[in-house]
Amino acid sequence: MNRLTLIDIINRALQEDLASGDITSEAIFETDFQVRANFVAKSSGVLAGFPVAAAVFEQLDPKVIYYSKVPEGNRVAPGDIIGEVTGPIRAILGGERVALNFLQRLSGIATQTANLVRLIEGYPARITDTRKTTPGLRQLEKYAVRQGGGFNHRFNLADAVLIKDNHIAACGSIREAVARARLHSPHTMRIEVEVENETQVREALEAKADIIMLDNMACDEMTRMVKLINHRALVEASGNINENTIKSVAATGVDLISVGAITHSVKALDISLKIYS
Amino acid sequence: MNRLTLIDIINRALQEDLASGDITSEAIFETDFQVRANFVAKSSGVLAGFPVAAAVFEQLDPKVIYYSKVPEGNRVAPGDIIGEVTGPIRAILGGERVALNFLQRLSGIATQTANLVRLIEGYPARITDTRKTTPGLRQLEKYAVRQGGGFNHRFNLADAVLIKDNHIAACGSIREAVARARLHSPHTMRIEVEVENETQVREALEAKADIIMLDNMACDEMTRMVKLINHRALVEASGNINENTIKSVAATGVDLISVGAITHSVKALDISLKIYS
Amino acid sequence: MNRLTLIDIINRALQEDLASGDITSEAIFETDFQVRANFVAKSSGVLAGFPVAAAVFEQLDPKVIYYSKVPEGNRVAPGDIIGEVTGPIRAILGGERVALNFLQRLSGIATQTANLVRLIEGYPARITDTRKTTPGLRQLEKYAVRQGGGFNHRFNLADAVLIKDNHIAACGSIREAVARARLHSPHTMRIEVEVENETQVREALEAKADIIMLDNMACDEMTRMVKLINHRALVEASGNINENTIKSVAATGVDLISVGAITHSVKALDISLKIYS
Amino acid sequence: MNRLTLIDIINRALQEDLASGDITSEAIFETDFQVRANFVAKSSGVLAGFPVAAAVFEQLDPKVIYYSKVPEGNRVAPGDIIGEVTGPIRAILGGERVALNFLQRLSGIATQTANLVRLIEGYPARITDTRKTTPGLRQLEKYAVRQGGGFNHRFNLADAVLIKDNHIAACGSIREAVARARLHSPHTMRIEVEVENETQVREALEAKADIIMLDNMACDEMTRMVKLINHRALVEASGNINENTIKSVAATGVDLISVGAITHSVKALDISLKIYS
Amino acid sequence: MNRLTLIDIINRALQEDLASGDITSEAIFETDFQVRANFVAKSSGVLAGFPVAAAVFEQLDPKVIYYSKVPEGNRVAPGDIIGEVTGPIRAILGGERVALNFLQRLSGIATQTANLVRLIEGYPARITDTRKTTPGLRQLEKYAVRQGGGFNHRFNLADAVLIKDNHIAACGSIREAVARARLHSPHTMRIEVEVENETQVREALEAKADIIMLDNMACDEMTRMVKLINHRALVEASGNINENTIKSVAATGVDLISVGAITHSVKALDISLKIYS
Amino acid sequence: MNRLTLIDIINRALQEDLASGDITSEAIFETDFQVRANFVAKSSGVLAGFPVAAAVFEQLDPKVIYYSKVPEGNRVAPGDIIGEVTGPIRAILGGERVALNFLQRLSGIATQTANLVRLIEGYPARITDTRKTTPGLRQLEKYAVRQGGGFNHRFNLADAVLIKDNHIAACGSIREAVARARLHSPHTMRIEVEVENETQVREALEAKADIIMLDNMACDEMTRMVKLINHRALVEASGNINENTIKSVAATGVDLISVGAITHSVKALDISLKIYS
Repeated sequence: MNRLTLIDIINRALQEDLASGDITSEAIFETDFQVRANFVAKSSGVLAGFPVAAAVFEQLDPKVIYYSKVPEGNRVAPGDIIGEVTGPIRAILGGERVALNFLQRLSGIATQTANLVRLIEGYPARITDTRKTTPGLRQLEKYAVRQGGGFNHRFNLADAVLIKDNHIAACGSIREAVARARLHSPHTMRIEVEVENETQVREALEAKADIIMLDNMACDEMTRMVKLINHRALVEASGNINENTIKSVAATGVDLISVGAITHSVKALDISLKIYS
Repeated sequence: MNRLTLIDIINRALQEDLASGDITSEAIFETDFQVRANFVAKSSGVLAGFPVAAAVFEQLDPKVIYYSKVPEGNRVAPGDIIGEVTGPIRAILGGERVALNFLQRLSGIATQTANLVRLIEGYPARITDTRKTTPGLRQLEKYAVRQGGGFNHRFNLADAVLIKDNHIAACGSIREAVARARLHSPHTMRIEVEVENETQVREALEAKADIIMLDNMACDEMTRMVKLINHRALVEASGNINENTIKSVAATGVDLISVGAITHSVKALDISLKIYS
Repeated sequence: MNRLTLIDIINRALQEDLASGDITSEAIFETDFQVRANFVAKSSGVLAGFPVAAAVFEQLDPKVIYYSKVPEGNRVAPGDIIGEVTGPIRAILGGERVALNFLQRLSGIATQTANLVRLIEGYPARITDTRKTTPGLRQLEKYAVRQGGGFNHRFNLADAVLIKDNHIAACGSIREAVARARLHSPHTMRIEVEVENETQVREALEAKADIIMLDNMACDEMTRMVKLINHRALVEASGNINENTIKSVAATGVDLISVGAITHSVKALDISLKIYS
Repeated sequence: MNRLTLIDIINRALQEDLASGDITSEAIFETDFQVRANFVAKSSGVLAGFPVAAAVFEQLDPKVIYYSKVPEGNRVAPGDIIGEVTGPIRAILGGERVALNFLQRLSGIATQTANLVRLIEGYPARITDTRKTTPGLRQLEKYAVRQGGGFNHRFNLADAVLIKDNHIAACGSIREAVARARLHSPHTMRIEVEVENETQVREALEAKADIIMLDNMACDEMTRMVKLINHRALVEASGNINENTIKSVAATGVDLISVGAITHSVKALDISLKIYS
Repeated sequence: MNRLTLIDIINRALQEDLASGDITSEAIFETDFQVRANFVAKSSGVLAGFPVAAAVFEQLDPKVIYYSKVPEGNRVAPGDIIGEVTGPIRAILGGERVALNFLQRLSGIATQTANLVRLIEGYPARITDTRKTTPGLRQLEKYAVRQGGGFNHRFNLADAVLIKDNHIAACGSIREAVARARLHSPHTMRIEVEVENETQVREALEAKADIIMLDNMACDEMTRMVKLINHRALVEASGNINENTIKSVAATGVDLISVGAITHSVKALDISLKIYS
Repeated sequence: MNRLTLIDIINRALQEDLASGDITSEAIFETDFQVRANFVAKSSGVLAGFPVAAAVFEQLDPKVIYYSKVPEGNRVAPGDIIGEVTGPIRAILGGERVALNFLQRLSGIATQTANLVRLIEGYPARITDTRKTTPGLRQLEKYAVRQGGGFNHRFNLADAVLIKDNHIAACGSIREAVARARLHSPHTMRIEVEVENETQVREALEAKADIIMLDNMACDEMTRMVKLINHRALVEASGNINENTIKSVAATGVDLISVGAITHSVKALDISLKIYS
């Protein structure tokens, strides 16, 4: 994670919650009252985001110190102490909710990713994220996917070419769309084409697409397409893949399985902050 | 929604995705190629966020025009056309993902909220959100809660006093914490105290708390506490309340039921953008 | 004061004065020339803002060190040394004017507030500020009011409901306005109504307003209204109250006296920076 | 006024007041309820800042329209209608306080400046402001000074050389300080020296300072110094000059009289917004 | 060009020049004085950046109107009218320098690029830029390269893998570096390896690098390497290539020639703004 | 250099290159892998910008340490070690390009400036820059000019009056333009007038301009004008002056020679970063 982006995201979150201060803590506590606090897991999952949570407190008050007790990407069980923070109570209580909002969401993403990764163990396919991330948090969420054992797809619209149904329809043909993309895009980028049927797969192969995304295809058809493509392009499966279907998808032999839900429909991991004065 | 905050959030999301442009569309399409597109619901739910989605395109290119076909807060069914946008294809395709990321998330929040609201129909309790919102999106998410028929709790740490377990523990007693809060906080704010048992409820009443939050209490105990409090304070139920438990909670007679999950664990509503060239 | 807001305000002030540097000091002094400087009071008043002034220098150059010699909120007399800063002369002279602009204004606010507070000693009323603050400096100015012994009213338009003449006129009646506000606003907020006469006071009481603001009322009428309200709502006096009138206002028995002038018409406290090379 | 700076200042002020919206107006009024409103003077003074106030509403909602009825810099009397705004009530009431905070402060500055200007009518001296402006509002405040008939001194530390007591003390002599400044500063800048007595005036003249600032000097001494200088440099009088002393100062023959109080100790001009629904 | 990025870059440039306004024009001209102005080429070259220059005026004052007379990427000769702007003289003169600074630099880049492109006409190699762009202007400069007939290399460090000498040295071998990169980077990115000799070319081929960059190699060696690689990877020539050497480099058969100088050592194209009042 | 401006410029440059991280280094290296690196000159020139380059790494990771081996403004020869940085390899490689982009450009400016300065040794004229700087980098580029032995002209449009052909044409006469400027501009600013012939020089002298800029005049005419002006105003030569013509220009006796090319047409100085693991 780039430190500048991280600080920027954290500061915005803090200003959202604390622009006018923390009325309760400021009314009740003196500025020099120190406490120690532990982040404690309350359900099982994969940890991601402790450095983010810690940086929340540090931005509020550089005197806060902290250390991690569980490496990023490791599993935690209810009751596990994830890490510790020590410092002025106003900073600890003032930053608590923002820190937990980050930590719970990112750990939720890592956990959901890890659950899918586990389901396809033994298959060569990578699980990747999508651009269906929460506005403003893409860098952090893609980090959390990696902690859960997943891989990243494109970061943004400028780091790879992905020709989708709307492009093909408006451009006229896969052949023409790929040709224009190859002519205008940097040579460092691969060209991926989203297809829906065998005819389109054949067109994409002829156009020498680097990656072919099979969109919402039945597993048996995907199996056929993987054979047809025969390593002439990477094959990506996509389209509402979930815990129930992912193993069958992996069994088709695709190289990549992209799953939007690991970032767009996240169940936060239950984590709390216990304070010791 | 404040227009300045909205534009700021949208621009950040756009820069996250488009800072270096949209390689694919720029390679394939001319700048003056116009299209029309519809937002189409692909599952059932409550709509929230069309003005946000529309503003995404408008920020990318002021020439984009749009209109809504379903009022905010209304239910949509699969196949329903939510709204229409027309403009240069580069702006429509460039903004598609960001617009959908907002619209799907906000509609997901509205949908989950509305489902809970429906479950307690007939009871006087309000369903409220919490501060467990996505960092950077609090204003939008609290807007979505309102579209789903829910109510807002505090916007931030400075617009009400909420004395929680950590404050009480560090301060010594509810009485002392409330006294300090009353002395230092603006007179426009109510004072809410989080309690875990009857003894604390009695202390909070003696301290003349305006609102008493019953944290993670069993329903029968909540029923007793509601009677004990007897309208001397508003009563809020809190703590992992979900679809299965909310009706029983409402039956205890509490005034407010706050639910973190409607913003921290959201299932995006499935919506897509169909383009007509 | 939230550290992030503080730094943001300071940096803007510094960029306003120093975006292209300090031509004079850079022409005359080497970068490593160190000085010590004292902030010295030149008239009597109440101190507020030394941490702000100190942070100005720290933002310009982290090597500057400083310590306070008078606690915030204490009275100073001409000649008193308020605090000391030591560091590179370019940072000290470069930040001098900005630091003094903050310190003199905030101490001016604290002083004017303290003067009013002293005038009503013995009466239970709180003196509060308003939203008539300098654009961009609200957090700092409300902090200064507290240092002067005053209390804060609303921080912004979203942390309490305040129904004023324009709302009542446009909505039709106090009853209707309060009803709508109660229905739509968070339960954590009190509802305040601004009234001008007894009829409106009675309406506000019937509507169960939490706070009634008596706007520009004569003192004898305020006395009657305080009795009429009889603790069923908090009572706030408002409207061009000044040093000559505040004692009579307090004598009416109101709970709160809000005074816009303590922030909108401030006489800066005279403070200078003496440098010792 | 530069439009970009203006919008930036306004947006910050609006976010300070409206980041979470305007709870009262949003609860009470529909989004499409239109009103007309007049800015009305409630005391006598010189108008400055109507374009700023109008831009506040425009930033909140581009549908607001407005026009001015009194030119900037003109005198207003109680009851005068300054200008009119028409638009959605939420924008008008939401922006009212911020708009007035700007307009009252800037008109207060223009009024105080104009009062001083009137006092020295017939004398050639210019009244100028200083850098003792409110942090964040310097451009606007210097604009208001001009509307009041005053002139601007330096905008910031990089647009002229001003050698003050601290520079002279740390550098050793006026001669040396001026020499270094002349060597290192752009040729487009004049060099001003602050002096306290005749010896320093003579040194400044020998060093060929372009402007000599007589700091806190008695009027008879200033008269002597003006003669001594004899147009070899511009002469500026400075140091706690006020309504009582300014005429005598002007009579000494100085070219410039700089007054910090016109920006650091401002009495807001009383102006209100009347709404017609 | 993304409109948000463009406006952001322009506004920063304007604030750099106009934060305190344009003293000269404001002193001399009334606000409503209108003029028309032409951008006129004063030397021969390729045009790039007229939309940027036009947007400069539009940001200063939305009333400015403009139109282009030469398409972007076309050649201009001395005396050619490039485009026209009409509007308030304060906006035209206030924005003149900033607009020209953009237009001259971007046209300089396009011109230098076009000159190199012309030199290798007939050869299949693409001329590409590098990341050696002016800090803050990368998007604009890469746009100008495209207008000159060049192609873009990576936009930033996250849109392709490029393994350079420092990576190889610190990692131990090309094989290991490529393996790690393939394991961790998104599947959408190509992997490029910078090599200095035949041994490294062979290692890169074995590691299945997608692109091989020949760094500072003699032309005859490059010819040999192109044959050795034999279309198993794209081949990029790099390292201080200039007008004198580029034709020989193209003759080696490489696919890509990257040239840092087209953005890091730019000769501005001479263009002026002629005003007609 | 003002630290806040510097950090702001650096952070923008870093976000341009690293917003999504550095895929290559993150894939290949562990976070705790430390290296040492030297900046090495690869051609001859004058150094400017090492503190900027060093701050790039520091912003990426505060653990990076560095020291300079050549003072700013000194000459370097190929092979000279300019300075050293030590820290985590991800920060060193991640910041390398941005650091070099600053250092090479600023040293290029200092070098070109120094070359011109050397050419006119013995003449009293100052070489100054112009406002023809790279958008966003003006402060840094003017700093580099000073390191090369040049002087700064105006920083922006508000720190001196410069009346050019367009102002004169639109205003009617030099006399009128100077009069208006004198009336409205701060007394701290000098008034400069751009002239093209003897008639205009005489007009400027009569109007008592402080500085007269001879625009694109032949050297013999400039010699005459210098005599005509005879120290009644500073004389500045301007207009496409370069290495071939500057000595003759200096010989005319002008006080100032302004050269746009030292900032608008820069040849980057060749510098590289050598890493030792």
